[in-house]
Amino acid sequence: MTGLVDLSLAEMVGGLDDGAISSVDLVTAHLQAIAAVNPVLNAVWDVDADGALAAALESDARRGEGAILSELDGIPVGLKDNIDVAGRPSTAGLGLAWTPGADAAVTGRLREAGAIPIAKLAMHEAALGATSDNPHRGRVDNPAVPGHTPGGSSGGSAAAVAAGLVPLALGTDTLGSVRIPAAYCGVAGFKPSFDLLPMGGVTPLCWTLDHVGPLARSVFDLALSLPVLANVEAEPVDLRGLVLGWPAEVDNCEIEPAVQGVIDAALDRLRAGGVTIRQIKLGLGDLALLRRAALLLIEAEGAVALEEIWRDHPEALSDTLTDMLSYGRDAPAAKYVKAYRRVETAGELINAAFDDVDALILPTVPQTAFAADAPVPVNQADLTSLANYAGAPAVSLPVPGGGAPVGLQLVGGFYEDARLIGTALAVEDLLRR
Amino acid sequence: MTGLVDLSLAEMVGGLDDGAISSVDLVTAHLQAIAAVNPVLNAVWDVDADGALAAALESDARRGEGAILSELDGIPVGLKDNIDVAGRPSTAGLGLAWTPGADAAVTGRLREAGAIPIAKLAMHEAALGATSDNPHRGRVDNPAVPGHTPGGSSGGSAAAVAAGLVPLALGTDTLGSVRIPAAYCGVAGFKPSFDLLPMGGVTPLCWTLDHVGPLARSVFDLALSLPVLANVEAEPVDLRGLVLGWPAEVDNCEIEPAVQGVIDAALDRLRAGGVTIRQIKLGLGDLALLRRAALLLIEAEGAVALEEIWRDHPEALSDTLTDMLSYGRDAPAAKYVKAYRRVETAGELINAAFDDVDALILPTVPQTAFAADAPVPVNQADLTSLANYAGAPAVSLPVPGGGAPVGLQLVGGFYEDARLIGTALAVEDLLRR
Repeated sequence: MTGLVDLSLAEMVGGLDDGAISSVDLVTAHLQAIAAVNPVLNAVWDVDADGALAAALESDARRGEGAILSELDGIPVGLKDNIDVAGRPSTAGLGLAWTPGADAAVTGRLREAGAIPIAKLAMHEAALGATSDNPHRGRVDNPAVPGHTPGGSSGGSAAAVAAGLVPLALGTDTLGSVRIPAAYCGVAGFKPSFDLLPMGGVTPLCWTLDHVGPLARSVFDLALSLPVLANVEAEPVDLRGLVLGWPAEVDNCEIEPAVQGVIDAALDRLRAGGVTIRQIKLGLGDLALLRRAALLLIEAEGAVALEEIWRDHPEALSDTLTDMLSYGRDAPAAKYVKAYRRVETAGELINAAFDDVDALILPTVPQTAFAADAPVPVNQADLTSLANYAGAPAVSLPVPGGGAPVGLQLVGGFYEDARLIGTALAVEDLLRR
Repeated sequence: MTGLVDLSLAEMVGGLDDGAISSVDLVTAHLQAIAAVNPVLNAVWDVDADGALAAALESDARRGEGAILSELDGIPVGLKDNIDVAGRPSTAGLGLAWTPGADAAVTGRLREAGAIPIAKLAMHEAALGATSDNPHRGRVDNPAVPGHTPGGSSGGSAAAVAAGLVPLALGTDTLGSVRIPAAYCGVAGFKPSFDLLPMGGVTPLCWTLDHVGPLARSVFDLALSLPVLANVEAEPVDLRGLVLGWPAEVDNCEIEPAVQGVIDAALDRLRAGGVTIRQIKLGLGDLALLRRAALLLIEAEGAVALEEIWRDHPEALSDTLTDMLSYGRDAPAAKYVKAYRRVETAGELINAAFDDVDALILPTVPQTAFAADAPVPVNQADLTSLANYAGAPAVSLPVPGGGAPVGLQLVGGFYEDARLIGTALAVEDLLRR
């Protein structure tokens, strides 16, 4: 049975459609994979075997009657542990659990489409950090580069998809928390436009920058989830004549040579495919200063978002998290306002770029996954956070190459999600040829 | 000549059109009115007599050639003193002046349409307060109720319009600073949807809540300015069948009996005209708590907006203003974030009301203009600020009645400015019949 989990999501959908496999087969195979792999991987924190099998039986029955709810009917899915699943524990990566009575809005959309919540997935504490080395629940491994970080904060989501524990997962992304682990683990991750996916039932961290988004093994698989999640169908895009902008700011970001080499090779292939790649100066200044401003928004809004848990269960927050939230809570309001203005202005500058280019193209992360015990690179989120400032859709797609996974990022115009995903599909298709 | 200033804006436009009057006539008459009335009124802080007369000659020449730029070509206008006019002093009500080299974006729109900036108008210090009793430049009187406040912060704009010193003025409105003085002085004032009018060249106070908006003697006159200012043409609205919502929260706001009486009589006339008026609970809770939350946003953002002037010219800020800005600057960021969330949530609740009603109807201010030396009522902005929280368009129209002026407020759906102004035109028409 384990071969099933190696199928792409598209192949699973096809197999269900033509009757070669059943949803029970799929759920069983993924439950077995979780049981086999997760003790080492630690990407899954909660498994709903009974619920998932019952739902799979119902899905197979619907299919037998020709009454499937969507293309995702019968597909097992995983949810980051800050996204509520009715009756299953949520932790948001903190040192306590609660059991919500209702699904998050995004969980509900999946369930109404027949998709089957099978697992809650590991994450960085409070979604505030990008290693998924959780002080309460331990470290998540990277299936693509064992012994290395999967990234974060949605590290469990990326690792579970990469390891075949689920074919589709949801994560959250405040500065890059879907795309960073997608890049480190060699899968695809998508942060939609701000508020395109509803945040209800997702533990907030920073209302200004939080987004929910899916991860899957390819953009092609990702795109299958978007009609259900966001009522978005990818728009067909022809690469010939497309103009992609390479932000000049990226060149000051200390891109690791291994990453730059893989990206440069991909850019060459795109140029050969008829794409114009043009350097574009966004005018953002020092990305590190921007990141620090955004971090203050997160620390201050996080202090409010987590206020009650922090007050009632101070032991559920690590000292590191407590220090960050305390800093944000007590910072002078004027400092927060300046940080907010800096982030908002950056977002406006980024959105203005789409007057000149069809999309931005840049690495997802400046480095590949680092060793689990190595220090955390400070610039990890400098390239992903730009799309959060702009509220713009951004996708990280895995670039084929010999070494550790590298992610290529495309950022599109605000609420032009359908076009951005179409562009990413065309880019993925070209790079895989 | 002085009779000219008593014409409505619409009559001035008509007079220019049919050649009965010239722009030079209009400018001259208004300059004379300013010279005669302003020493007592103190609504005007700067007059550009030479520039205005030169512009009037040019306008008359254009008209002679059949080449007018808009309906407002040749019409004198006044700008609140936080709205830049190239080459004329700006103060934003502070104790220093600077001379901008360029027009504010809204000033530019007027000038490109042939309207003639003739005067800079008095205002409350920094636009933070609603009496226009300015510590640096003295008190503005209320032409409709001498010895009483004109309201604020755009008190000079409302008083100048009411006294016939300009037929059209621009003000700014962060919690009600266009509509409150409009109501107190018996003129019409309009706060458009958030960002419909550009803020460039307007001294900011609170980026989250600031708006620019026009004042004129009637909604009919106001509406004449909107094609030029906002590319908005009033939509024809039939009152029969219209459903207006009276927010239940208003009934906890200690409306002065004189105001309630005038408003009730107006509601009765509207009902007789076929309007349904329905009580609607917005779910906002205590409006005073909301106002205090909004005030913190203003104090904190104002501390950042005015930071450089405050640092370089601390003597240009009164002790009262300095105390408010210091409080906002130093408040904990978490307190600001909570206030922001409270205001944002209120805005969402207000916008949701337009699923059930065509517009909200309520008093503009709970009281009529109070005596210049009387204490300031704390609830002055409780009814106007709702539209700022929602970013929704709101108009205050003067209700005919025997006593001190009373304003009736209509609030419409976000970016449904054309429909709201159309509704206000129909209401004004009915109430004047």
